Parts: sequence; C-alpha cells; structure tokens
Amino acid sequence: MVTPYKILSRVNSPADLKKLNYEELDTLADEIRDHIVEVVSKNGGHLASSLGTVEITIALYRVFNPPVDKIIWDVGHQAYAHKILTGRKNRFKTLRQYRGISGFLKPDESKYDAFGAGHTSTSISAAMGFAMARDLAKKNNKVIAVIGDASIAGGMSFEAINHIGHEKTDLLVVLVDTEMSISPTVGAMSGYMNKIITGKGYNEFQQAVKTMVEKMPATIGAPLVTILKHVGEGIKGMYSQGALFEELGFRYFGPIGNGHNIKTLVETFEKLKDIKGPKIIHIITKKGKGYQPAEKKPTLFHGIGPFDRVTGEPVKSPGGPVYSKFFSDELVKIASINTSVIAIVAAMIEGNNLNKFKKLYPARFFDVGIAEEHAVTFAAGLAKQGFKPFVAIYSTFIQRAIDQIIHDVALQKLPVVFVLDRAGLVGEDGPTHHGIFDIVFMKMIPGMVVMAPSSGNELQRMTLTASMYREGPCSIRFPRGSAEQPKRQGNLFPVRIGRAKTIRKGTDATVVCLGPVLYSALEAAERLKNTLDIKLEVIDARFAKPVDKALITASAARTKVLLTVEEGAIEGGFGQSVMRIVQRAGIKDLKTRIMGIPDRFIEHGPMEQLRSDCGLSARGIEKAVLELLNSK
Amino acid sequence: MVTPYKILSRVNSPADLKKLNYEELDTLADEIRDHIVEVVSKNGGHLASSLGTVEITIALYRVFNPPVDKIIWDVGHQAYAHKILTGRKNRFKTLRQYRGISGFLKPDESKYDAFGAGHTSTSISAAMGFAMARDLAKKNNKVIAVIGDASIAGGMSFEAINHIGHEKTDLLVVLVDTEMSISPTVGAMSGYMNKIITGKGYNEFQQAVKTMVEKMPATIGAPLVTILKHVGEGIKGMYSQGALFEELGFRYFGPIGNGHNIKTLVETFEKLKDIKGPKIIHIITKKGKGYQPAEKKPTLFHGIGPFDRVTGEPVKSPGGPVYSKFFSDELVKIASINTSVIAIVAAMIEGNNLNKFKKLYPARFFDVGIAEEHAVTFAAGLAKQGFKPFVAIYSTFIQRAIDQIIHDVALQKLPVVFVLDRAGLVGEDGPTHHGIFDIVFMKMIPGMVVMAPSSGNELQRMTLTASMYREGPCSIRFPRGSAEQPKRQGNLFPVRIGRAKTIRKGTDATVVCLGPVLYSALEAAERLKNTLDIKLEVIDARFAKPVDKALITASAARTKVLLTVEEGAIEGGFGQSVMRIVQRAGIKDLKTRIMGIPDRFIEHGPMEQLRSDCGLSARGIEKAVLELLNSK
Repeated sequence: MVTPYKILSRVNSPADLKKLNYEELDTLADEIRDHIVEVVSKNGGHLASSLGTVEITIALYRVFNPPVDKIIWDVGHQAYAHKILTGRKNRFKTLRQYRGISGFLKPDESKYDAFGAGHTSTSISAAMGFAMARDLAKKNNKVIAVIGDASIAGGMSFEAINHIGHEKTDLLVVLVDTEMSISPTVGAMSGYMNKIITGKGYNEFQQAVKTMVEKMPATIGAPLVTILKHVGEGIKGMYSQGALFEELGFRYFGPIGNGHNIKTLVETFEKLKDIKGPKIIHIITKKGKGYQPAEKKPTLFHGIGPFDRVTGEPVKSPGGPVYSKFFSDELVKIASINTSVIAIVAAMIEGNNLNKFKKLYPARFFDVGIAEEHAVTFAAGLAKQGFKPFVAIYSTFIQRAIDQIIHDVALQKLPVVFVLDRAGLVGEDGPTHHGIFDIVFMKMIPGMVVMAPSSGNELQRMTLTASMYREGPCSIRFPRGSAEQPKRQGNLFPVRIGRAKTIRKGTDATVVCLGPVLYSALEAAERLKNTLDIKLEVIDARFAKPVDKALITASAARTKVLLTVEEGAIEGGFGQSVMRIVQRAGIKDLKTRIMGIPDRFIEHGPMEQLRSDCGLSARGIEKAVLELLNSK
Repeated sequence: MVTPYKILSRVNSPADLKKLNYEELDTLADEIRDHIVEVVSKNGGHLASSLGTVEITIALYRVFNPPVDKIIWDVGHQAYAHKILTGRKNRFKTLRQYRGISGFLKPDESKYDAFGAGHTSTSISAAMGFAMARDLAKKNNKVIAVIGDASIAGGMSFEAINHIGHEKTDLLVVLVDTEMSISPTVGAMSGYMNKIITGKGYNEFQQAVKTMVEKMPATIGAPLVTILKHVGEGIKGMYSQGALFEELGFRYFGPIGNGHNIKTLVETFEKLKDIKGPKIIHIITKKGKGYQPAEKKPTLFHGIGPFDRVTGEPVKSPGGPVYSKFFSDELVKIASINTSVIAIVAAMIEGNNLNKFKKLYPARFFDVGIAEEHAVTFAAGLAKQGFKPFVAIYSTFIQRAIDQIIHDVALQKLPVVFVLDRAGLVGEDGPTHHGIFDIVFMKMIPGMVVMAPSSGNELQRMTLTASMYREGPCSIRFPRGSAEQPKRQGNLFPVRIGRAKTIRKGTDATVVCLGPVLYSALEAAERLKNTLDIKLEVIDARFAKPVDKALITASAARTKVLLTVEEGAIEGGFGQSVMRIVQRAGIKDLKTRIMGIPDRFIEHGPMEQLRSDCGLSARGIEKAVLELLNSK
C-alpha cells in the first residue's frame, strides 16, 4: 500500500478487528474502500459489489472467528474487503495480475478462503456441506454463506435452501440485497424483495390493532382472541417480510435498511450468533457505495477494466471493436428482417452487448436472470413453436446447462443457436472463467453444429448462417476482446456448413486453426517463410463439427506434417477429432501435433501471457512447427 | 387392445371426451387404468405416477383443446393416460418395446406430445417458451405445464417460476402432488405442501370472523375495516395456502384434495381457463391409484419391470446381482471402517441400491431430492472439510451438474467420488436416459480419474480404490443390470490408478475394452480362435483417464491392429484418446478402429438389441476385427 492508512495499517487479520471501537471501524471502512478503488482503477476488477459489502465484511469478522468459523462468499464479486482483511492487504495491489492474487475466492491463496468460487449461486450448497461436516465431526463452529440478491435467485440456491430447510441445518445466510444484479435484477424474487423493503403495511396495521383493542367491548372478546391468534400467524406470513423463506424452513430476519452501519450490523450478527437452525438475514446495501461514479453507474462498474479514479472514465483499451459487438450488430440487422429471431441472455445484457437489441426489439429480448438452465429450455419451447432463439451465454456459464442442451434442444433437433462469448482463455478472471471446455461438450452432442469464427467478419457471416440454419441446434464460440477484422468483402454471405477454407497455401506443413488463433498461425507462417523458407499451409477450420474431412485430409496427405491449433481443451477436443480423421484416412508417415489448452487448469493473467504459456502464440506455433519438422 | 373396453373403444382423440357424460368419463378412467396396468405388467414402465394422473388427464383434455392448446408434461412418468387418449391406444401395447412407442414424451410420435421429456423439471421452462411464442404470434391458445411435487422442487423449476412471475406470462401450472416422489419427497418444499394440505386453521378462522362480525358494535367499525383489509392480505399469505407461489407472482388455487374426481377437476379447469396470468393449481392424487399393489408400494411401482398382475409380484429377472449392488455392498463395508465416507443421492435411493447404507449410517446419508447441482456442491463442501462423499447419480442425470463438478470440485482438487450408475445404453427408457456422454465430459476435466469396471468384482475394487484416493475427484461408471462376476480372488485389493490389465494374450489384433463390453470381446476372441485361429489380445483398460499408455502402445506395436470398444459416445471419447496416443507413439502401419456409440441419439429397446445395433456385441466385435484384418 502506498498510502499509510491509519487503521488498516494495524489490521493484519480478522482478530485485530475486535480491538477497534466503532469510530475506528468506520475509518477502517473508508480506508478499505479507498484502497479497493485505488487498486481496481489500475488493475480492473469487480468494483461495485465489493464496495457494497465493506461494512458487512468488517462486522462479520468482528463478530465471528474465521478461519474456525467458516464464511463462504458467493462468486467473489463481493470479497475484496474480505481479501484485504484476511492477510492480503499488502498483496492486494497485485489483484488479477499474473501470479498476483486472484479476483475470486481461492483456498490455495488463503486459509480464510474457505471455499473456492467464481460462478454464482454455489455458496449455500457449499455452506451446507461445511455445516453438516461440522455436525458430523461434533464441532461447534459457525457457518455463514454471503450471497447477493441475483445469485440467490439461481436455481441451485433454491435447491440448497430446500434441502437445508428440510434438514434444519444450523447455518446463516447473509443476503446482500443491492436491489440490482449485474444487469438490474430480473425475476419475481427480486420483485418480492422490493415488496419487503418498501412494505409500509405493517406499521399501519399495528396502529389499527392498537386503536381497536383500546375501544374493545368485552362481549366480543372470545372470538377476537381466536382471530388475533390467527392474525398473528397471518401477519407473520404477510409482514414478517420473509414468508417465502419462512415457508421453506428458514427463520427470516430483516430487512436491515442500511447495510453500511457497522454498529447495527455487529449488533445484529451478535444476536443471530447463538440462534440455532437455518437463518437468513436480509441486508440492503448500495452497490458502488462510497465511490460516486460507481454509485451512479453500478452496472458499468460491476466488472470494469482500468479507469481514471477522478473522473470514473474507463481507460480506453487499445484495439478495435470486440467480437460480441460484431455478433450483436449483425443480430440486430438480421432481426429487423427475420422476425422469428429472439435473443436470450442470463443476467448479462452488457457483457453480451445486447442493449441495442433489447432497445429495438423489447418483445423479442429476454433476460432470464442467473438461470442458465431455464434459459436453454425456455429457448427450446420458443424454437418448438417456430422461433429462432439466440441464447447468448458465456462459454464458462453455459456449462450449467449442458443437460438442457442435450435433452431439451438436441434430442428434439430444435434450431436454437448458442452464442458463446468468452470462449477460450479470458485472462484476468482466471480458472473459474476460462471457457476451455465448450468445444468438447458441444461436439459430443449429436446433431450440434459447432462454429468458431476466426475474425469479426467471419462472426458476422456465422451469425447469418446460424439464423438461416433450420435442421437443428448450432453454436458459435468466440473469444473475449477485440476482433481480428480483415476488410469485409462486399455483401455478407452465409458460410457453408462444415466447409473449411485454405487461407495460405504451402507445401511443408499444414496448420489447421480453429478460431482467431488463425492469425497467430499466419504470423508464424510469414516468419518461417522469411527466415527458413518453410512454407506453411494454413487452414481456417471454421467448424469443429462437422469437420471438413476432405480439405484437411488432402492437405495433410500433401505436406505430411499436420498441426491443429485451438483455444480449448486438448483432451476430447477438435484436434483429437482431426487426428482421428487423418488416422482413418491412413496417410503414411504423417507427423502430427495437437496444440491447445493442456490438461490442467490455467491461472489468471493477461490473455497474451496465458496464450503464450500454452504455446498458442505465433512464436509457440513457429516453435511447434520446427520441432515437428525436425522430429524423426 | 385385447379387452373390448366399452367407452375407451369410442375415444380416439381428446375431442371425443366432450361427448361423454361424467358417468362415462368415470368408466373411461377405470378402463384406461386397467389398460395401463395390463400393458405395464407385461412391458414394465412407470406405473404408479401414471395411475395417479388418469382423471387429471381426462379432465384436462375435456376442458382444453389439444393440440392447439399446449399441454406440456414433465418427465413423462405421468403421461400414459395422455398417450392412450391421444391416438395411441392401439399401439400402447408396444410401450417401451423396440420400435414401439416411447415411455416418455416424444414429439416425433404424436403431435399431442407438445414437447419432448424424460428428465425432470423442464416443463415449466418449456411452457413459458410456448406461452411467449403464442404471445409473439398473437395467438390465443392456452399453455399448461403438468408437473409433480418432486419435480417442481428442482432448481430449474424455480428459475422458470421466477421468470414467469416477473413477465406475468399467461400459463397454468398443474401441480400434481402425490405427497411422495420416487423416493419419499425430500425438501422443505415438500413439508410446505404438507402444511398446506393438512392446514385446518383457515376454517377455524373464518368461523371466528363470522361470529365477531355478527356481534360487532358500530363504534369500532373504522379501525376494523383497516384491520380486515390487512387481515385479508395476511390470510392470503397464511391460509390461501400458496404464499410461496403467490409471493413469486403466481395466483395459487387449491389444494384440491381428491384429484380423482373428474367432475371437480373439470369444473376447476373450466374456471381457471379464462383467468389470465401465471396460475398454479395444486391437486392431490394418490400414486398407484386404483391398483392395490401400487397403492401399497408406490416406490416399488414407480418404475418397474414386468410383474404378475394378480399378486403384484415382480417377475424375477434372470441374471445375478446388479452392478449397483456390488457398489453399495462394498460401500457399506468401507463405511463401517472409514467413518469419513458419506453417500449422497438425488431422489434415487432405491435406484442406487443405497437403502442399506441409509439404514446403517443415517447421519452419513443424504437424499437431496431432485437437485443434482446442489448435490455436487454440497459434496464439495463436505470434502473440503475432510469427508469422502460418494455422489451416486445416474450418468444421464449427472449431466445436470457438470459445471459444479468442474468449478466446485475439480478446480479445488476435492476428493469427491462420482458414482455413475446406468452408464451406457439403458434399454427401454431410451434416448433421454442413455448414459453415453459421461466418458467424454468426465475425461475433459483436469485431474479427474475416470474408472469403468468390467465386472462386479472390479467395481468392488474400484469402490475401495476411490475411497482411498485423496488427490482429487474420481468417477466410476457402470451399466444398468446384472454384473459380470468372475470369481473373487481372495482379499480385495485396490486397483492401481491408470493401470490396465491384459486379460487374454494374442498376436493378431489388440482389443482394448472399457467396461463390461470386455466379456463380449472375450467371447469374440474365443470364437475367432476356434473358427479361424485368429488370436486376439484383449485388454481391460479400466481407466478412461489416465490411460495406460505403455501397456496399450506396446500391445498395438506388436499386433499392428488396434480396436477400442466402449459403451459411450465415440466423438471425444475414450477411443479417440487411445488413438491419439498410438498416433503419437508413431507405430507404423497400424490398422485402427474405434467402436462405441455413433454420433446420433439411440432409440429405446432391449439393451442387447441396442448394443447389437451399435456393433457392441460379441458378433459385432468379431465382425469389426475381421473387417479390419482384411482391410488394405
């Protein structure tokens, strides 16, 4: 830390919080907030949620005793203060940097990260595991799950609540309600919470009861007793403001209107500490709290790159438009002609660049909230009735809905399009967010067409292709970040399904590329030509399924050297399919190599660094070609 | 139909129901029930649930107008009466038979099967798709989802309800409450419903209000009006007996205590027909209704093979104990010594043969209900605290939790064991239930050990191995049905991770088998030896990951002919991994063939028939070997 923070400098672990008075704790909150803004303005990160939970974190760690008490954070968007308070304040400046600390929860990093996270809605399930483990081991530590209002609406949160209510597990759910998820929260659950927060009926009712009881003649006392008994129960349902949770076996407390008052929070947690069984405490916070630009634009500051701390303006990232913009611009165009086109996202309107679509075609746009499973089957229903849904969900999050893709879409050959942004390595978000499995699991599904554009223009063409494809489901995967953009040639034509394209002719080795890694291969080809007069044939595979067997086999048979390159898991991936094809073709003396993501989880860091680590840079491809050519 | 049913013989489509009076409809229900019992006693099937929904089906089809109105059945366990009433009464006797009608919903089979199903909890999401499609197309048909009490507790049902409540979509959810799912229903939701059903408070309350109002002096009129207004609201929360659904934006109706009274049901549906917006009608039914043995043992008769209609006794199936019994017996033994062992199932205690475990170690047994996602992350929490959870979920259902396996288990290297029963072809349940993808998606996950025992004894050994393995997650896949059981040799020893085993020596071709298909290969080997003196080397791979590279490569290098055989998808599967290994090893002039499930969905039918269709029989392997040997 550059600034010598007065209180934070004395806090090295949660235990130190117990020595501070409320005034000092308030100062500490300001200092933590300042430090978070400082670091995130440089490194990027999940700012708005983390600013919203500073006081909750302080209060939790003052009342409870981590790491003996287990505090399980959902996602990790909210956990920066947690990181700073649990021995990582000096390393916090390395947040999301290569070999620095992770932007999410990571037990390898600290014993205070009780459970790893990055995806949403897992904390309550995990907390139940911790609580049951405690009971079986006859220990008596506390278990707390901290979860946001959007995450608690995810299906698996409900599954966990349903199970906990049944088992009467002793744990506390801290529901952090920002009244806004990544995109403004979607769903009836959100409406329900707002009703709780704004409900003024209870006070009015209490006053009326008081008045009536004062005026009561004794003659009607008997039935009234019965009524009041029931009214009390009815009230609990209506006004205790947690009927939904209470019906599922939780005791509901709250809402606490100001989740930034440490004293209130500490006193509340103290009271809850010794109440047994399933409990939920509902706390209202302000997303972006304490940093004006983030308070004003919490969606922008949910996950953000580096920004100017004073103005709040994002630092312009170099490079042209991102892939998702090529997709969304094209989809907007197609939708103006093809009225069967529908766009569906799961709480990621901004991330998927679909604001414009939403604005132009509000009736054909659906944000289902954090509900990937529902998103896919909902799309299947629409498709069954003749619509053409584009389901835009990041590669890593669509992992939540593989069964629905198989069972509800592919089995019925429904023409749903899966648009997988953030496919491949995603950089600073790291292992929980890399989209490296989608090629494998999409390709295994009968009838699924698996496309991977190499450039913005190709993505446009594949979007058009997908919109015209009626025989079954298809998917389009593309990476995070700026698109490669060869000049667009005249009108836009669809791509022939399963047709690859030779981009550069050569005689010494064939490099088959899937996705934008094509441009690294072309760079390698140019260099090898110039330095060693090695002539690479470079093919843009375009489709991981169906593979263009004829083109690839013919090229490999000529060059006798075949490399495949993809930004996805090697195990079960595109390369293995291609290699099986040439093996069956019986090409003699063929030298082969598969390049892709090795069989391990990849850490966080700049995309180029990670790609280079995996050998997926121009240099890496060049090196691989030379090794292969020089092998026996 | 053999029996000439008086009424059913006149009913060929739902429209015919409108011509019948209530007495005739009651007779029709009896006839349908009789026919269902008759056919299922011969063919096996999902009996108890289908018997429970006969009257609901009749009432729905009398009131609504399918196929214009869309009636979407969840799972299909409840849909036999639906099949009989929608033009399939004559084909119903072919239920679940090869090329006969499917045991689940299948749009290819009938225009009345609005949406395909087989897995649970999908109907509400799909129904929303249908309803939105209707609104966008400006049509005015009705959309109805029929779902059971266990399925509605699945996470994706909640996601759908949350979205529908938000969009205020006009559709009707028919909640069929049997007060019992496949296993007795688990979860707070179930407790909540029971509270609704048994709640007698409402009547008592109404009586008291009546009494009081009669005796009311005018002086307290004013505050009372306010109170009653609020009480009305409170009551709605407490006694309308659907607060949970109402809070999420649905209008709740019910419960209807006797879901077998057609007149009540028809009148109810008539009333609901023209109410707009999200609605749920809660109907209590009796699982197994009308067939005594099924009423008494609904769990046994949930999904059952052929049985004696008179006694209700299942027809003894030939063959020895099933695979899952080898697993569960071993797990029970291990758990007596290793107290960290925990068993987790998702509503499938019987299916997974874990009743004994539950009885002996109730504290270490968890049935989480239909909640595969939660099951996995809950297990991860337990594992993080040092326990050894065995998560027993069928191969086809674990597809629901792939993200959780990756994100919550594998990323943290947690030693959770995934026990995948019904891996491979499952026979009569067909395409929604075949477990053909697990090898691919388990193998793609870094650090996952993927085991596939070839026999009951091997399964015992692998269960022991898994219980001792601490470095990370592992999985064990085994098929439905009786186990191959070579005599057990002395004490049980664990298997070395990644070590295959040569079962039969040979010189002419290598056959690498994964799973019990080993015994078909051995049969083929014996026959080829006897008939043509061809000597097969047969290897039991045991592990799809890590593959025993050394053993397989050495054998292939000797024989120059390599076949792999697995009961799983070829695309991205075990065979492709093996072939890549030998390709890298650079074995010259190697002839190769991958045998497995081709890249299409496989229909229903007897397992042996389906295996034979895929070439996975002894004859199929024999033929493939000969073709390969005779190829150029």
